[in-house]
Amino acid sequence: MQFQLTADYIEQVAKLIINKEDLAIKTLLQGVHFADIADLLEELNSKQATYLIKLLESEITSEALMELDEDVREKILKRLSPEEIAQELEEMDTDDAADIIAELDDHIQKEVIEKIEDETHASDIVELLNYDDDTAGALMAKELVKVKESWTVAGCVREMRRQAENVTRVHSIYVTDKDGKLTGRLSLKDLLTASTKAHISEIYIPNVDYVTVDTEDEEVARIMQKYDLEAIPVVDHNGILVGRITIDDIVDFIKEEAEKDYQMAAGISQDVEADDSILQLTRARLPWLVLGLFGGLGSVYILQGFEEALSTYPILFFFTPLIAAMAGNVGVQSSAIIVQGLANDVVKGSLVTRLIKEVGLALINGTILGLLVIIFGQIVGQETIVSITIAISMLSVIIIAALIGTFVPIVLDRKGIDPAIATGPFITTSNDIFGIFLFFYISKIILGF
Amino acid sequence: MQFQLTADYIEQVAKLIINKEDLAIKTLLQGVHFADIADLLEELNSKQATYLIKLLESEITSEALMELDEDVREKILKRLSPEEIAQELEEMDTDDAADIIAELDDHIQKEVIEKIEDETHASDIVELLNYDDDTAGALMAKELVKVKESWTVAGCVREMRRQAENVTRVHSIYVTDKDGKLTGRLSLKDLLTASTKAHISEIYIPNVDYVTVDTEDEEVARIMQKYDLEAIPVVDHNGILVGRITIDDIVDFIKEEAEKDYQMAAGISQDVEADDSILQLTRARLPWLVLGLFGGLGSVYILQGFEEALSTYPILFFFTPLIAAMAGNVGVQSSAIIVQGLANDVVKGSLVTRLIKEVGLALINGTILGLLVIIFGQIVGQETIVSITIAISMLSVIIIAALIGTFVPIVLDRKGIDPAIATGPFITTSNDIFGIFLFFYISKIILGF
Repeated sequence: MQFQLTADYIEQVAKLIINKEDLAIKTLLQGVHFADIADLLEELNSKQATYLIKLLESEITSEALMELDEDVREKILKRLSPEEIAQELEEMDTDDAADIIAELDDHIQKEVIEKIEDETHASDIVELLNYDDDTAGALMAKELVKVKESWTVAGCVREMRRQAENVTRVHSIYVTDKDGKLTGRLSLKDLLTASTKAHISEIYIPNVDYVTVDTEDEEVARIMQKYDLEAIPVVDHNGILVGRITIDDIVDFIKEEAEKDYQMAAGISQDVEADDSILQLTRARLPWLVLGLFGGLGSVYILQGFEEALSTYPILFFFTPLIAAMAGNVGVQSSAIIVQGLANDVVKGSLVTRLIKEVGLALINGTILGLLVIIFGQIVGQETIVSITIAISMLSVIIIAALIGTFVPIVLDRKGIDPAIATGPFITTSNDIFGIFLFFYISKIILGF
Repeated sequence: MQFQLTADYIEQVAKLIINKEDLAIKTLLQGVHFADIADLLEELNSKQATYLIKLLESEITSEALMELDEDVREKILKRLSPEEIAQELEEMDTDDAADIIAELDDHIQKEVIEKIEDETHASDIVELLNYDDDTAGALMAKELVKVKESWTVAGCVREMRRQAENVTRVHSIYVTDKDGKLTGRLSLKDLLTASTKAHISEIYIPNVDYVTVDTEDEEVARIMQKYDLEAIPVVDHNGILVGRITIDDIVDFIKEEAEKDYQMAAGISQDVEADDSILQLTRARLPWLVLGLFGGLGSVYILQGFEEALSTYPILFFFTPLIAAMAGNVGVQSSAIIVQGLANDVVKGSLVTRLIKEVGLALINGTILGLLVIIFGQIVGQETIVSITIAISMLSVIIIAALIGTFVPIVLDRKGIDPAIATGPFITTSNDIFGIFLFFYISKIILGF
C-alpha cells in the first residue's frame, strides 16, 4: 500500500523531465498521493520540480505545494508566473492560499491576487491576510458548511450539497440565525437520523464551542485539545460566523511548538532543520554559544579570585567541572519540569510551595550524590575533611541550582515571556557561574584557605 | 463561553458533596463539559470525586474519567466496585475502555469485564487488550461505520443510521466486500450528493490508506500526519476491517512523544509532571545526576593527570569550566538537530556528508569563539601564546563535540535505540570528559609543560 520513493524512481522521473516525455510522466505519477508528490519535488532540482508543477493537474500540485518545505516552495514559486501561482491558489482552501501569498514578495502578492478568477475566493484570501499572525483569524479557513435555523432537514441537505462542493472535508455543520450569527451546530449523524420534514431549529445543538478572530493560536490549540474538537468555528466581534479551524492545522501547530521548545532547550534560537545551510545553522547556534562563552569567561574571573587555593587545595579545581555539570543538570531538570507544567497548565499552588518542594527534592538528590563523593574520596585516599567539604558545597550548589531552575521560568511566564527560553544554555550558563562561586565560597569558609 | 473553575466554585461543590445535596449538585453541574468536570474532579479529594462519579450520569463521567490524570483516576477507580466501573465502561468507546481496564489490577480486570452487560462491547474490549502495546491494534477502537459494496445508497443510509448510534463521531464510512475485507471508503459528502438508488460500488473511493493491527504507533502517527488523515482504518492479517484510529488519539500520542523527547533531553527518565510526588521525581531525576557525577569524577581523574600544569599554567584550570560548557553546548545543539531530523525523516545523505557539514559548522563557530577568547586575553593582559593555545584547543574541542553530537544519535537510531536519549546528560557528560582531556592534551603539546 505504501508508496516508496526510491533513488531509481527519482532518477527515472528526472530523466523523463529532461526528455520532456509529458505523457510518460503523467502515467507514472497517476494516482500518486500529493504528499508523495511533495517528497518527490523535494528530491528534484527546482527547475525540474517547477516543470512537474506546471505539467500536473493543479488539484494535485496545489496540495503538494502546501506539503513542501518552505525553502523548496520558495524556489519553485520564484519560477512561476503570477498567473500560474494564482491557478494553484484557486484549488487551495483559503487558509492555505493565504499562507502561500504571505510568503511571496509584496509586489507579487497583489499581482497574484488580481489573477485569481474566483472573486469570492480572492476576497476571502485578502480577508484572511488582514488578521494578525498567531490569532485564530490567521489560522482559520473560510470554507465551511452553514445552515439557517429556519430551514427544514430536506432544504438543508439540498443547500449542503451545493456548499459541500467547495469544502474538502465536512466536519460539522454550523447553524446561524438569519443575520449570520452563530447559534449552534448540527452533527451529520443527527442530520442522517432526523426526519426530512423536521426544522433545523428542532434538531440542532445550541451549545457550541467557538473562538473569536483574535483568540491567540495557543489558546485555540488548548481549547481544541481539551474538548477533543476536530473543528472549531470562528466568529467576529459581532458573533457572525466567519470561518473554522480544523484539527490538522492544530496538529501542525502543536508539533511546531514542541519542536521550538526542544530547540530552545538545546540552545538553538531559530526554527532550523538538519538540512538547512551552514549559514542558517550558524545564525541559530552561534548566539547561544557566545552566551556560553561569556558565562565561561565569568567563571574564569571567579576562579582567579580563589587563586590562593591553588597551592593548598588544588583538588577543588579538579572538582570544578563536576560542580558546574551538577549545577547545570539540576537546573535544566527543574526548569524542564516547570516549563512543561506551565505549558500543560498543571503547575498549581503558590511559588513558595513549589520552591519548598524543589528544595526537598534537591536535599534528597544532593545528599545521595554527596555520599557518593565521600565514598569516592575514601577509595582514592582523599583527606576526609576535603571530601566532606566538597560534598557539602555540592549539596548547596544543587539546592541553589534547583531554586534558580524553578524560579526563573515561573517568573518569565508571569512576565509574559516564553519560559522555554530558560531551560537551555541560559540556565546552564548562569548556574555554572553561581555554582562555581558558591562551591569555592563554601569551601573557603570550611577549609579556611 | 469558557467555563471558569474558581476556588469558590470548587469549595461550593465540595460543601454540597459533604451535605449530600444531590439535587443541588446536579443542577449546578448541568451542561458543564466533561473536560471541565474532569478538572473539577482533580481538585476534589478522591472521596469527594468518587461521590461525584457515582452521582452523575455515566455518559458524562465516563468521558471525564478518560480526561483525568492517571494517578487521580487510579485513586477513584480503587473506590468503585467492579459493577460501577463496568457501568462507566459501557458508555466508553472500546479503545478508551480497554485503556482503563489495562490500568486495573489483574484480578479486578476479569471481574469488571464480566459485569459489562453489552456482550459485543465486552468481547471487543477483550480483543483490544490482546494487542501489543505500541501497535495500531492497541490504539484502535472497534466503533466504526461500515457498509457493503453491494448496497444501495438508500439501504446504506438506513444501515448507517443504525450503526451511527454507537459511534460518537462519524469520520469516514468504510466499504467492505461480502467477507468483510476493506475495499475502500465513502465520504459523507459523496453519500449526500449521490442518487439514493445508486449502488455503493459505483460511488465509493477504492483507494484507501490503512494500517494493519501490528503497525507500530509511531508509523501510524507518521502516516496520518503525512497524508492529513483524520481517521485511518485498521485491518487484520487477512485484510478484514477490524477497527479505526482517529486523529485525537494521534494528537495525544504526538504530544506525549514530544514531551518524552524534551524530558530526555533535560535528563529526566520517566514521564513525570510538576505535581508528582517527590519520590517519583527523584526516581526520574537521580539516575541522570549519578551519571553526571561519574562523568565529573572522570574529569577529576583527567585533571589530576595534568597536575604538573598547576604551577606553570594555572590559567588552564580556570578555563576548564568554559571548555566543558562549550563541549556540552555544541554537543547538545548538534544532537538536537539530528534527533529532530531523524524524527521528521529529513536527515538525508550519508553519515560522512553529515559529519563533514558539522565540521564546517564547528570550524566557523569555533573560529569566531576562539577570536573572542584571544580578544578577551588581550584585554585582561594574558600572555598571547596562552590565549592562542586556549583558542586552538577550544576549536578542537568544539569540532570533536559536534562530531560526537552528530555521530551518537545517528548510530543509536540505526541500532534501533531512541536517539533522543543522546541529547541529554549522556552527550553533555561524555563531551565534558572528552573536551577536558583534549583541551589539556593540546595545551600540553603547544605549551610544553
